Formats: sequence, C-alpha cells, structure tokens
Amino acid sequence: MSVSDKCHGTGSADSVGWVKPDNVRLATSDKPLLLECGAELYPVDVEYECYGELNEDKDNAILICHALTGDAHAAGWDPEADRRPWRQDRPGWWDGMIGPGKPYDTDKYFVICSNVLGSCYGTTGPGSTDPETGQPYGMDFPVVTVGDWVKLERRLTDHLGIRSLHTVSGGSVGGAQAMEWALEYPDAVSNVHIIGASDKLSAQGLAFNAVGRYAIMTDPRFNRGNYYGKEQPLDGLSVARRLAHITYLSDKAMERKFGRVLKNGERPRYEIVPEFEVESYLDHQGEKFVRRFDANSYIYITKAMDYYDASARGNGNIQKAFANCKCRFLLISFTSDWLYTPYQMKRLAKALMTGGKKVSYVNIPSDAGHDSFLTEIDNMGAVVDAHMHTDGGTRD
Amino acid sequence: MSVSDKCHGTGSADSVGWVKPDNVRLATSDKPLLLECGAELYPVDVEYECYGELNEDKDNAILICHALTGDAHAAGWDPEADRRPWRQDRPGWWDGMIGPGKPYDTDKYFVICSNVLGSCYGTTGPGSTDPETGQPYGMDFPVVTVGDWVKLERRLTDHLGIRSLHTVSGGSVGGAQAMEWALEYPDAVSNVHIIGASDKLSAQGLAFNAVGRYAIMTDPRFNRGNYYGKEQPLDGLSVARRLAHITYLSDKAMERKFGRVLKNGERPRYEIVPEFEVESYLDHQGEKFVRRFDANSYIYITKAMDYYDASARGNGNIQKAFANCKCRFLLISFTSDWLYTPYQMKRLAKALMTGGKKVSYVNIPSDAGHDSFLTEIDNMGAVVDAHMHTDGGTRD
Repeated sequence: MSVSDKCHGTGSADSVGWVKPDNVRLATSDKPLLLECGAELYPVDVEYECYGELNEDKDNAILICHALTGDAHAAGWDPEADRRPWRQDRPGWWDGMIGPGKPYDTDKYFVICSNVLGSCYGTTGPGSTDPETGQPYGMDFPVVTVGDWVKLERRLTDHLGIRSLHTVSGGSVGGAQAMEWALEYPDAVSNVHIIGASDKLSAQGLAFNAVGRYAIMTDPRFNRGNYYGKEQPLDGLSVARRLAHITYLSDKAMERKFGRVLKNGERPRYEIVPEFEVESYLDHQGEKFVRRFDANSYIYITKAMDYYDASARGNGNIQKAFANCKCRFLLISFTSDWLYTPYQMKRLAKALMTGGKKVSYVNIPSDAGHDSFLTEIDNMGAVVDAHMHTDGGTRD
Repeated sequence: MSVSDKCHGTGSADSVGWVKPDNVRLATSDKPLLLECGAELYPVDVEYECYGELNEDKDNAILICHALTGDAHAAGWDPEADRRPWRQDRPGWWDGMIGPGKPYDTDKYFVICSNVLGSCYGTTGPGSTDPETGQPYGMDFPVVTVGDWVKLERRLTDHLGIRSLHTVSGGSVGGAQAMEWALEYPDAVSNVHIIGASDKLSAQGLAFNAVGRYAIMTDPRFNRGNYYGKEQPLDGLSVARRLAHITYLSDKAMERKFGRVLKNGERPRYEIVPEFEVESYLDHQGEKFVRRFDANSYIYITKAMDYYDASARGNGNIQKAFANCKCRFLLISFTSDWLYTPYQMKRLAKALMTGGKKVSYVNIPSDAGHDSFLTEIDNMGAVVDAHMHTDGGTRD
C-alpha cells in the first residue's frame, strides 16, 4: 500500500492520522533499572507513541499496554512503515479503540503506548547491544517481568511529567500490566481496564509457552541465542507462532473460518504435504511472524507472561493482593477465550468485588477466542466507552 | 521391574497373563494391499496379539483398535518387553478393559489387537524395508488412511478364520477404525464401540497435527525422512509430542496436576530454564516418547487421523453415510475431552438415532480430557460391560 492509498485512513475524522514513534533513554549507569531478578540494567531505551494532547493539569493521560508481540504503534498510520516493516502497512493494533470520538478519545485524552522491555520494536531487548561486550545481549539479557515492564512505564510517564494516569488499559499480557499498575502504583492510576487477561496464566497456558520456547531453543540455528548477523532460528520461531495462533483462536472460530476445506479442490492428494486450508493459514502466520519478530525476544516475553501472578502479593489470595488498590476496575473477558478464560476473570471480579472495590465486569459473547481483544472492537468499545463516560475519579 | 516383580500382575485372576505378539504377512506381490491413495503395497506384515479362545463357531471375536501411538499389546504382560522397550514394563494399554471377568471378557470372548499400517511396532511402516531399494521407505512410504488400516484388519480376521466380529472397539483414532468397520463391512460386525472419537477431526485438531508435523519436518536431522541409521529428528518429534500431550489432558487436569508449582522451591529463579512442574512433565513426556516412536510413523499416522471423515460416504451427511450399517452402536465421550469433543459425539449419536440405528450414548463426566479413554476404566468399563451383557445380535 502506498502512502497515498493510506490517506483516506489518516484523513478520516476518527483517525489520529500520521504518527511517529519517539525513543527516549530512561536508564543509564547513573540510574540503572533494578529488575525483579536482581540485575541492574542500563542503558534502557524506550520506544513510545502519543496521541492527543496532554492538558495543563496533566491529568488526562491514558496508558495503553500492548500484548506479547505488539508494539508502541497502537493507533494511526506510520509514514515510515517501510523502516518498521512489522507495522505491515496497517493502522496501529488498537486503532479501532483509540482516536477522535473513539472509546479512548484523543479529543479528550492524551494516549501513550510504549514497547515493553525485552521486545524488539525499539525498546531495549536481547537484540540490543550489551555495553559490556559491544555485541547483542542474546541470552545474556536478564530475565524481565511484567513488574519490570511497569516500572519502566512509570519512568516514561515521569519523563512526560505525568504524576497520575487517568487510565491504564491493556489486553492479554497488556491486561497484566494494567493490573500491575493498580498494585504497584495505587496512587498513580484512577482507572484500570483489564481485558482478556487474568491474574495468572493457567498450567495449560504455561505448557503452550514452554513448547514454543522448546521449539525455538532446539532449532540448531538458535545457537544459545547467538544468531544475530547469522542464520536465524526461523523454523523454531515459526513452530512457536503456529502453535500460539491456535490458542489465540477458538475451536468454533477455526471451524467457521476453515472447517476441513481442502486447499486444492475436493479430493485429497494423499501426499505428505499441507492439504487443508487451516494448514495454509498456519503456514502464512508462521512466515509472516518470523519476518517481524526476534526469537530471543519471544523467549523473554513469554517468560514474563509465565511469571506474572498478581495474587502473589497476597500469598495467593487475590482479594488480599488488591487490598490497597484505589482505582475503578473495568474487567472484560470473552466467552470463547480459552487462553485467558472467563472463569479466571470471574474469579478476579469476584475477589475485587468482595474486597469492596469499584468493579464493572462484562463477559462479551464472541467466538473469536483470545483474539477477541483485538477484533471485537464494537462490543468492547461500547463497554469501554460507557465506563469512560461514568465517574472516572478514584474512590474516596 | 524384573520379570519376577511382574508375577503378581500376570498371576492375578483378572489378567490375561503373559502374552506375546504374533506377526503375519498379509500382503505379497501376488496379493498386494490396494491403498486409498491408489498405491499397491507389499509385502505387508502385521503384528497382533490375541487373548482368550476363539470358539468353534468363530463368532466370539472382538477386535480392539489402538490409538495414534499405541500398539498391538492391549492386555497382559510381555515377557520380552526388553526387546520391545516401548512396552515400558507395564501391562497392555487397555489391560483394565480386557481380561477374565473384565468388560471385554476373555473368559467368553477371543480378543484381537493389531498394530496399524504405517506404525513402527511390528506392522509394516516407513521404517520397513522398501523391496525396490532394499532401504527403509522413509517418505517413499505411501500415504495410508484409516480405511487402509481397516482393510488390513479385515485381512487379519480372514487369516484367523473369522467371518464376522462380535464387536469392534477403539478409543480416539481407534474409534475411527471401529466406525470404518461399521461402514465398510456392515455384514461383518455386530457391535461397534466408538470411544473418545468423532466422525472427523475438527479444524483445531487438524491444526495441532499440522504444527507437530511441521516441527518434525523442519528438524534438520529429519532429512526428508532419510534418517534411519543416522541421527534422528528427536527435537522435532519431541516438540510434536509435548504439544500433543497438552491436547490429551484438559485445562482442569493440568491445573489439578501441576497448577503453577515451581520445580525448585518457592521462589522463581528468573532464568531462561524450565521453572514450572508442568514444564518438567512435558520434558519427561517428550524424552520418553522419542525413545519409543519413529518420526516418520508419527507423520503418517497423524495424516491418517486428519484424512478420516466418516461422513464422506454421505457427502457430508452422517446419517446417510451410516444408512447401510446394521450393528449396534455404543458411543462414549468424556466431558472434558477437547480433542474429540462431546459435541461431535452427540452429533454422531443424533444422526445415528435419527437414522433408526440401535445406539447407546454416554457422556462420561471426567476432567482427564482426551486421555480419559485410557484412564477412566471404572466408568467406561461399567458402560461397556452393560452393553456387552445386553443383546449383542445384529438388527433384523
């Protein structure tokens, strides 16, 4: 798609239009980032985007947290998408949610989205240069957690002069970040939107991540993470992505999208080749992904997803963990999401309600599975919109 | 476990005791096996086991069909397990169902189980010698189907002098074989037990199989299937097995068995290593499996699983497909099975009932997932037992 083709999108009344990321150094040797694992990390650069205007009181800021393999480009169009090919000539990943008049209304709010620590989209990660060696970190990069991500996000909002956020919102492991904001900085956030997420990943979710990492790490080209400038472990990464994609959809969605339709006509070929449409879909997803993502980052970010457990602060008791939180909570799950399931969200909602928090919980009917947080814009948007239009203050 | 340790098991009143497999050549150049893909295959050897005695009328035979990676050793103890290490010093895989006084009662019935075509446990498969080259077939082995498996099973029952089977029973893709018997040989089977199976695999099931095969075939040691006598594609096969194991359990079973328990104490190590118990479980399953199974066989057998569609004979209409079937049907699903789901089994039951067939259908409550057909012996056994003790004749 050429730039001119995109003008319609950028020029439409509800688009934030052309956007470009900023990049800022938020940790140096003077002020390293102390990680949950005990390591001190510097330098740390953060890539982020902003939409709308920060008001004088600096109290209209919304932080949007991206999911596993997302990036800072949450809304609008990037005129330099060629330089950042993962942006795939599409608007930002939550463009339906963010813009003038949209649920996260850039006419009223200043919206920020930053790339997480350990990723490969501008924020420091395993592909960044280790100052000690002058080489990419690879597996020498320290293990990072959702807590570390949020700590760095706090440095970013400090840098932008924002003392308190109106809202933190995110889907999937972005929802984990939103939760962590409520827990770690209870005085610095008024509203938390947790979408298609849970206080912790299930054993089944841990298992899927583990198989993906195993596939990457046993790819001979992985070479213990030292593959930069050499052949990449694309086959392992592709396996991980194919597998993950199954967990992002649902049995029903796959049945509806692909069923058992054959790629080539009505008769099977009876050869050891991909025969079914669903296999072509996975091939396509795998191929697309390995062109845009770094295998080491995939390992680190899935580890962060694994480790996250919001209930840990309450020794496993969610209600206790959230005892000091003051924000309003909006929780959204999707009926067919089997990665971060409605039953987990209900458990969280119940604990928060029992703990006397201000909680709205909606379980949106959808057969799109976990991907619903990216695709069910109409229903999810209406719920968010309603929440944004009611009292947004903190509890007294 | 030594042979003496096992004497208790073999000597107990409800065990078939010591057993050994037989092997018979059932296709030769004079009488090749014509496969669904159009190829003619010979020689074809079949490994099988029998328990109990065939009566004079030869009308008390039960054929048991194994699942994906199973073998002919369905009951009793193998004194030569050292020679067939996949038998793992355990009784046969359905020992709880087969034996004196057990649901498939060897005091009354003659029970047969054979290894499927394309497997690696004694029946001809990709690891067998291609007579044209004198080398293992590898990927030159023709694609085989559930229909081909059943055709070969029919040759085996012919060889044993059995014109009609009292019952064909199987779990998982063994259930597909039982279905296929009803469809292909309606006059040669009186009872069909379809357990934890469906008329066809879902798109999600196809997707999981495809990822497993992709992992094997991109392992550099796979070498287009020519790895015999060389290094094996163990990493790819291990990925496939780990992944498959997740689909054999259930979210609930994994939560109950492993939850988020850490391998080493209470605190995470924050290292890029397997941290959770569930990861050790998958490691163990992967390692155990690659010692016992052949990667090419895994590819061929999952393809057979993919291709199977009992409704194809009715152009997608199940009721039409089964119109000529005369047997009694016993259908069993398990509530938490998400690989071959209860909703699929209900669809099948409904179609058969609407078509005027004699059908018993039970959806057994279990949180063990697809593995229930191997583990829920008490409940499943009681249902099978009841069915076996009612009129076992064909419909008039």
